[in-house]
Order: sequence, then structure tokens, then C-alpha cells
Amino acid sequence: MAVVYNFSAGPGVLPEPVLREVQAEFLSYKQGVSIVEMSHRSDTFGTIVEQLETRLRRLMHIPDDYAVLFLQGGATLQFSMVPMNLRETGRFAYLDSGIWSKKAIADAKHFGDVIVAGSSAASNYGTIPDWPEHIQDVDYLHVTLNNTIEGTRYTKLPDTDVPLVADVSSNILAEAIDVQRYGLLYAGAQKNIGPAGLTLVIIRRDLITERDLPSYLAYSKHVDTLLNTPSTFSLYVAERVLAWVETEGGVEEMERRNEKKSKLLYDALDTSPLFYALVSGKNRSLTNIPFTTGDDATDEAFRQFAETRGLIELGGHRSVGGLRASLYNAMPLEGVTRLIDVMHEFEQEGQDVSYKNV
Amino acid sequence: MAVVYNFSAGPGVLPEPVLREVQAEFLSYKQGVSIVEMSHRSDTFGTIVEQLETRLRRLMHIPDDYAVLFLQGGATLQFSMVPMNLRETGRFAYLDSGIWSKKAIADAKHFGDVIVAGSSAASNYGTIPDWPEHIQDVDYLHVTLNNTIEGTRYTKLPDTDVPLVADVSSNILAEAIDVQRYGLLYAGAQKNIGPAGLTLVIIRRDLITERDLPSYLAYSKHVDTLLNTPSTFSLYVAERVLAWVETEGGVEEMERRNEKKSKLLYDALDTSPLFYALVSGKNRSLTNIPFTTGDDATDEAFRQFAETRGLIELGGHRSVGGLRASLYNAMPLEGVTRLIDVMHEFEQEGQDVSYKNV
Repeated sequence: MAVVYNFSAGPGVLPEPVLREVQAEFLSYKQGVSIVEMSHRSDTFGTIVEQLETRLRRLMHIPDDYAVLFLQGGATLQFSMVPMNLRETGRFAYLDSGIWSKKAIADAKHFGDVIVAGSSAASNYGTIPDWPEHIQDVDYLHVTLNNTIEGTRYTKLPDTDVPLVADVSSNILAEAIDVQRYGLLYAGAQKNIGPAGLTLVIIRRDLITERDLPSYLAYSKHVDTLLNTPSTFSLYVAERVLAWVETEGGVEEMERRNEKKSKLLYDALDTSPLFYALVSGKNRSLTNIPFTTGDDATDEAFRQFAETRGLIELGGHRSVGGLRASLYNAMPLEGVTRLIDVMHEFEQEGQDVSYKNV
Repeated sequence: MAVVYNFSAGPGVLPEPVLREVQAEFLSYKQGVSIVEMSHRSDTFGTIVEQLETRLRRLMHIPDDYAVLFLQGGATLQFSMVPMNLRETGRFAYLDSGIWSKKAIADAKHFGDVIVAGSSAASNYGTIPDWPEHIQDVDYLHVTLNNTIEGTRYTKLPDTDVPLVADVSSNILAEAIDVQRYGLLYAGAQKNIGPAGLTLVIIRRDLITERDLPSYLAYSKHVDTLLNTPSTFSLYVAERVLAWVETEGGVEEMERRNEKKSKLLYDALDTSPLFYALVSGKNRSLTNIPFTTGDDATDEAFRQFAETRGLIELGGHRSVGGLRASLYNAMPLEGVTRLIDVMHEFEQEGQDVSYKNV
């Protein structure tokens, strides 16, 4: 079978050695039954959860005064759980840097007053808003650290006493994140961690308080325990992916590789006669690179052209269109060089055929 | 490898042909990438979701005026979402039939006044409360149709105009459920449907109204669409399990088999000199059978005795102890006859050794 490179923004590509391992032991995991048939309260599964947390703490240098929660519902459920659980004054500050932060803002409004402390909506999210100069009297400041759809990211953090809350769904484990600078981090697993179905929350323990909330929605009920049955298969594969990241050299090595991969692609886009990146400057994402020819029909022609050559999921998010390549940890360098080759091939053919008429 | 029979209450045993199929196609599902790497917005995955819904509607005879939602967070998140979404008067009626219904009641109290319309707490949940005679002026009447921990179930339904809401986590697809009698049914998938990570909600469409709720928590946002990334692997395997149920003869055939399996085990328990079932009478569960020797140490000795013979997960729920055999759809008749043989073997040995002194 020809090699396929999967540029999906998530669920996205996972390390092949992990997938082979999962396949090999799928019918019988230790107790002679499949991992998907195993009680989440069994000792065997308990060891998996423990290992998963240990590896995550090691890889991200998570201090002991932070708890790691294994939840469900994706980042979207965190758009509710964050304000429900961190509400003190009922005033929340948000940076509006793209479609996902807009959704987070909309949900937070159900629980208090949202101060939009910065927005790049006017630039159609081609940039990120600056950190606010003075921010106080709010329960937290929320930021989407990497904007999966728009392809931007924050690299510097503000000097503030307000707890920082960040959605790190698309850059967790792909670049170094200084956990201690944050009050809370959350991420859907389906990009750099494992299969969809697992949501990670990393929270400073002093922010977890007993609240008048129903069980699933209270962080306090998930601390140091599994409140109910998680998506067990997702946790199991995530543990294996984290083992792979450790073997490969950790987050620092992942970041080095992702910088190399994304630089290759940005350089190719910046010098292409046909394609260009939608984001310029220093806040370009390492993991999500939206690009275009400037013409919808040509973009679509390229997407199909690439697909027939084994490069799949290059369409932009359904809300914005265009093209997008997601270069998560498990995307090998060869996938990026192959994409660049196919872009050149398409440019070449374009000299003969007008794709605008496809 | 010796055959292992898995009596786990959930995540539980799944059909072996399905597990083999999943394993075989795990590295490459149609597009040349693993099912766990596939975008939930891809056409390929869209077809899986469509098939899953079609099969479920066919198997459960779900009418068109009911929507099927694919959620996360387990039954536990539904303990919140049900009252949040069905709240009109803010008065809810609940039948208190066991530990899970107690948890549902505790969560519902966050959203209104809970009327406990019947309780079997006084009998330590060895029976189920009767249906209330007159129930009115409440938004719904909630029942746990099969009590996974206590091993009881409802078979008759009340004549009432109040919408019935039922937790069917442990009996969905294991016995016929007359969907039209209910306003809403919900179930965690990890017993008879597939791997953990998927929660099904089947709701009469007239009960879905636009509400001032944040996105993930509003049923209206999940109708006829995937609001966000679900646990894709769980949906994919669930679709394959439902195909297996259809091939085997549907829910009616599953119920026939489960009646046969549970009757065998109940008969063995009722005639055993050592073991006895915790529930007697007509409300015994088809799927979850708690039993005991009446002595904790002997129960534990049997659990270990059985485990060395390939019969695993026979311990009772951690909150009640004792023993429990869950006989879900994928448990073959041979698993039950083997369990009965091992019980006899243990009884025989017990004539020589006093397990009370283990």
C-alpha cells in the first residue's frame, strides 16, 4: 500500500509504532481480554492511568501542586466547566483570537460577565491580540494558546497576577509550555496525545474548591480519582503515545522537530509563485498552517490533486475554507517534504492548465 | 491461550468477531490511515455515524419523532443534563432504586426540587420501589430501569402522562425497551454497545427546546449533528457491535439468550448449598446478578478460585462487595455454564476446606 500522509487538524496522525503495538495486543491485554473490555477499576487499568499521569508530569514538568484530571466532552465542555469552577467575582477576561476563543467566550457568558481584553477579529484573526496591559479584578484571563483554525499562536506570556487559563488542545506536547505560569490548562487529546475521547485538565490545586455543582461538572470530584468510566481506550493509547514521545526525546525534541517541519513548509509557501500562508510574522503556529492559492476552485483542485498522491485532509476548517496542513508530533519530516514536492508539481502543471476553470 | 470469560459490569465483554474485525483493519481504515487518526468531519467517518444511528433505530424501533444524540461524559453527565434540559416547573420525580439512582437524585437537586416518588432503600435495594400511583405537576419521572449494582430491574411501566426518563445503561440492547413509552432514554455504551466513551441519548423531539444553556450542555446543540469531536473509536466499534447484534437476530434474540443465560445462573444459585442470589422474585435483572456465600472471606476465596480458572471480574461493586456476574449480550452461554461448573467445583472443595478460615 502506498504511504499516506494525514494532515488532519484532529483527530490527527498518531505514531505508527504505537498503532502497531495497539493492534498487536488488541485481542488480549494482560488479563486475556481486550483493553476495551477491561474494567476501569481493575488493577491493570489503574496501572495504565498511573503511568499516563506519571509520563505527562515528567514530559511537561508538571509540579506536584497541580492536579491532572482525565475528563470527557472535549475542550467544548471545558468552555463551561472553567467558568463554573473558577467563578469568584463572576468577571472573566478573555482574549478573542479566533473561532475557538469566540466559542469559549459565548459559553462563559452563561456564568458571568466576560471582558474581552483583546481581539484580533478586525484582522479576521490573521494576527493575535496583544496581552492586555492592566488586567485585574477578574477571576482569570483566558487565552487560546494555539489557534488551530487560524494558524496563530502565542509565544510570550504576560506579567500578571491573574490566573492564566489556556486552551492548549493543538499545541500540548508539541512545544514547551511553562505549566507554572498557568492556573489551568486544558486540551482535547485528539491532536498530539491520542485518540479522541480524552480531555486533559491541568489545574493548580489551590484553584480547586468545593462548590455547589453537580458531580460531573465539579473539578473537585475528579481530583486524584476517576469519578466515572472514562474513555478507557483513549487513555490507554495516550499512555502509549506519551511513552513514544519520551523515547523520541521528550517535548523539547518534539518542538525542535516541529520547528524544522513548519519552517520548511513556511519557507516553501513564502517562495511559492502560487501558494501563500495566511499568517505572516512571528506568531505563526508550529502545528497548524493554513494556506491558499487565493482562489477557492484552485484550492479545491489542489486538495484533490494532493489526495490522489496520498496527502489527505488538506482542506481548511469548514468555517473558513482554503487549505491547511497540521503538522503534529507524529507527522514525519518526509510528510512535509512530500507535501512541498506535490505543491511544486501542482505549480508546474498549473503552467499548462488553468485550475481556475476546473 | 486458555479461554477467559469476563464478567465485568462495564466496560464489559464485547463480541469476539467484532474485536477481530477491529484489529484487522486497525492500521488502515479505507483512507489508508487508522480509524483513530480520522477526522470526525470526514465523509468516511460521517458514514459510520449514519450507519450507527440507522442500526440503532432499526434495532430499538426508534420512531422518527425521537432524536439520537452521541455524547460523552457517561450516565453521570446525564444526571445533570437531564434536569438542565427538561426543566419547566423545576419539580422532578425520581424513583430511588439503588446507588445509581441516588447519584442521579443528588445531581438533580442542583436544578430544582426532587420528589422521591418511591424508594427501596429500606430493603437495602434488594427490591425495586413500586411505580407511584398518582404523579403529576412534575417535569418528568426518572427511573433506573436496570440496577447494575443491586441486580434488580423494572419490567412493567406505569400509566402516566408525565414524561418517563430512564437510565438504561446496563440493559439497552439486552432486552426490548418500548422507546415510545419514554420521553428520554440514556445509556453509557460500555456494557452492551461498545467501548466506553460514548453516551447515547434518545429523546422525543418535542422535549428538545432552545434553552439558555452553554453549548455542550444543551441537547438542542447536539441534535442531528456532531457538535464537537466525539470519542470516534467508540462510535466506530459501537457501529460494528450493532451490526453483530443485527446479524445474530436483533434485540429480541439477545433478550431470549439473556433470559436463558440468567435463568441457568439463577437456578444454580437457588439450588446451591453455598451460594445464593441477593435478589429474589420477579424483578431480578437479566444482565447483572449479584450473589454471595454470605461470608466476605469465602466470597473473596471464590473470586480468586474462579480467576485462576479464567473467570474474571466476579467481584461485586466496590460499594457493596460480594460477588456479581454480568451477563451482557457478548457473554456466551458457555461462559455461564463454565461459571456454574466452577461454582460446583468450589462447593465440592469446600466440603474439605473451610473457606471461612482462608
